[in-house]
Amino acid sequence: MNQDHQQHLDMISERARQIMDSENIDALVATSSENFYYLSGHQSAFMYTLRMSEVGLAVHFRDPGRKAIIIMNDFEAAGFTGDPARYEIRTYPTWVDVDDPLNLKGGSYQGKRPVSPQAEEMFGVLQQVLEEYGISRGRMAVELDLMRHSSVMALRKACPDISELAEAGPIFTRLRAIKTPWEIQQLRKACAYAEAGVEYAVREIEPGVSAAGIVDAFRRSLMRNPDGSTPRFHMISVGDHFAPVQVFDTRPSRPGDVIKFDVGVEVAGYGSDIARTFVLGEPADATKRIYEALRRGHDRLLQMIEPGMPMKAAFQEGMSVIRAAGLSQYNRGHLGHSAGLSLAAEEGPFISPSETAIFEPNMVVCIETPYYGHGIGAIMIEDMLLITENGVERLNRLSTDLVSL
Amino acid sequence: MNQDHQQHLDMISERARQIMDSENIDALVATSSENFYYLSGHQSAFMYTLRMSEVGLAVHFRDPGRKAIIIMNDFEAAGFTGDPARYEIRTYPTWVDVDDPLNLKGGSYQGKRPVSPQAEEMFGVLQQVLEEYGISRGRMAVELDLMRHSSVMALRKACPDISELAEAGPIFTRLRAIKTPWEIQQLRKACAYAEAGVEYAVREIEPGVSAAGIVDAFRRSLMRNPDGSTPRFHMISVGDHFAPVQVFDTRPSRPGDVIKFDVGVEVAGYGSDIARTFVLGEPADATKRIYEALRRGHDRLLQMIEPGMPMKAAFQEGMSVIRAAGLSQYNRGHLGHSAGLSLAAEEGPFISPSETAIFEPNMVVCIETPYYGHGIGAIMIEDMLLITENGVERLNRLSTDLVSL
Repeated sequence: MNQDHQQHLDMISERARQIMDSENIDALVATSSENFYYLSGHQSAFMYTLRMSEVGLAVHFRDPGRKAIIIMNDFEAAGFTGDPARYEIRTYPTWVDVDDPLNLKGGSYQGKRPVSPQAEEMFGVLQQVLEEYGISRGRMAVELDLMRHSSVMALRKACPDISELAEAGPIFTRLRAIKTPWEIQQLRKACAYAEAGVEYAVREIEPGVSAAGIVDAFRRSLMRNPDGSTPRFHMISVGDHFAPVQVFDTRPSRPGDVIKFDVGVEVAGYGSDIARTFVLGEPADATKRIYEALRRGHDRLLQMIEPGMPMKAAFQEGMSVIRAAGLSQYNRGHLGHSAGLSLAAEEGPFISPSETAIFEPNMVVCIETPYYGHGIGAIMIEDMLLITENGVERLNRLSTDLVSL
Repeated sequence: MNQDHQQHLDMISERARQIMDSENIDALVATSSENFYYLSGHQSAFMYTLRMSEVGLAVHFRDPGRKAIIIMNDFEAAGFTGDPARYEIRTYPTWVDVDDPLNLKGGSYQGKRPVSPQAEEMFGVLQQVLEEYGISRGRMAVELDLMRHSSVMALRKACPDISELAEAGPIFTRLRAIKTPWEIQQLRKACAYAEAGVEYAVREIEPGVSAAGIVDAFRRSLMRNPDGSTPRFHMISVGDHFAPVQVFDTRPSRPGDVIKFDVGVEVAGYGSDIARTFVLGEPADATKRIYEALRRGHDRLLQMIEPGMPMKAAFQEGMSVIRAAGLSQYNRGHLGHSAGLSLAAEEGPFISPSETAIFEPNMVVCIETPYYGHGIGAIMIEDMLLITENGVERLNRLSTDLVSL
């Protein structure tokens, strides 16, 4: 873990304590892959690779005299890379045994191994910690909304005295929306890799190429990066088949087809999310007309976003511009979102009519003006922006023109 | 969708109805990515790519006169590939707008678009269906254990009259454990791709290679496959760093290091899970001794598993053999598991002491005898087996010797 990453963790930790103070929260508990990583600096393979949630806990305390506690199964904990000065590790047994034949760690666990992950055991360790720290009757914030129903039941059973389980979702959203210098560095790289992937795939596009072929080229491009970055998603559509799919179309493209890239690359757990649209040969009049209206909205957002502006104001203005530019029926839940850890690509705050957040320096947000039409296809521009002290820095460098291939 | 896949869906549908009859369940509802795909034949990009759950529902009815109902957002539903004779699609609005400027589908949705997925809206559609079908006071099985807490709350609110929400988990486990010919075909391919990846990576191993380098070779190997198969996981460890990680070690290997591959490849949503161990140069005596004990257990499992045998008996015998062969403290929650759709690689039934299932023809199971030791590393053999009418067919073909590289 380099110094920038350490500093990032310090900054989060301090800001988390401020929020916990103001909301009277004694312990903030992360259970999802993203928030466990955010608080611990450790990407859990059980959570990311095996897609399990509630198999590890990162517990942050309001009391600055307390180290954060990381609760993990003993198998995965053997590879925890965090700083021992900052974190204390507590373990619970899982189905995998860890032996210690040379007595390097002081003997191995002898009890019965469970068949599969045991949330009860893990929350039992949490209860012990809360008791030791004298806050077993305190106020704890957990990711109630995201947790599995069975985990919420197990948590309530294991920690019966806790006076209130508060929803941690809004706290994490507020924390994560403001990026540290280390996070901005990862997102810049993720954006650059995604653009390089689009450029590479575009160069390989030949008449008749299919969506599956373009996805393959995009994935091959990422294999050239030195740091194991992987695609997070590649919603690539060709022609009028605009729906998001997991199994890509092998249908050959035809002259006039639009080709939409909506792609993201992961760097150190941070994902980019950008989009560009191309056309095979000459675009149809409808395509040109729609593209132009979307771009006017996009340009207006780029021009107007600045610190202090309410996100809902950006939504309203962007929608008005697009409607006035000819797409009078344009409809949409949001015109952008914060970017970072979320595996679902989009995360709050949203550039939406119901958002109460304002743009602030060191936010990284995506602005997007997507259009999907039966008989037309997908047409979209999406940029990532870093909010600066007095405006925005666009992280993308590809042209926003509708380029003919 | 080819004929084998259609036949697969027919077989599942029929077996699901038998179980629903015997358990008096009127509607079986899939909410997870795996079970939605299992019942619908459609891999949802929202669920797989964007890792969202409870954004689509596949509803199967006990009444054979009722088509299955698929509830999806209107954006993704535009690409549903299932047979209209078998499924009826109902949609709910999401934040993405779908336009219909040429009036190909009969006009587009004009209402307000939400900011993010709305479980309430989706379960509201479910309630309408249950009312239409006269079973809004019936018995419904849902994936209660896996669902998010907030989704369970939304479901209870939307369907207040349902007399009982039964846990669907055991029904899906029972259904999924027996594979159709189409599923066996996908798992064979997934196993072959994983072995080809191991072989390719092994050929590239040079003195000093790191775990990150081996992972890179494994991933490159898969890029050569024609059908877009991707790694599901690659738990590759070198030397004594045995813990599962998401960020791979760049530490150079040293003579005597063990190299463990525990890898899976995805084909049409079905994942393989196999493991092999190699050693750089001459193995240490401890490594040879541990390997030999594990292999005796593995060989015994291979030899003894047959239809009708209780899984717990295989566990007990495997553990006894390994312990008698020198690893007297060997400890483990299970010695294998069913394989198939689960993104977590392992799924029930398990070869464990508490399992009540028996081996049955057309199950595909993994048998595994993993060892992880501080100062030693990871040593492991894992094979995939198809249970046949009178024994097993091993799907792996790589040697189970401890090969020196």
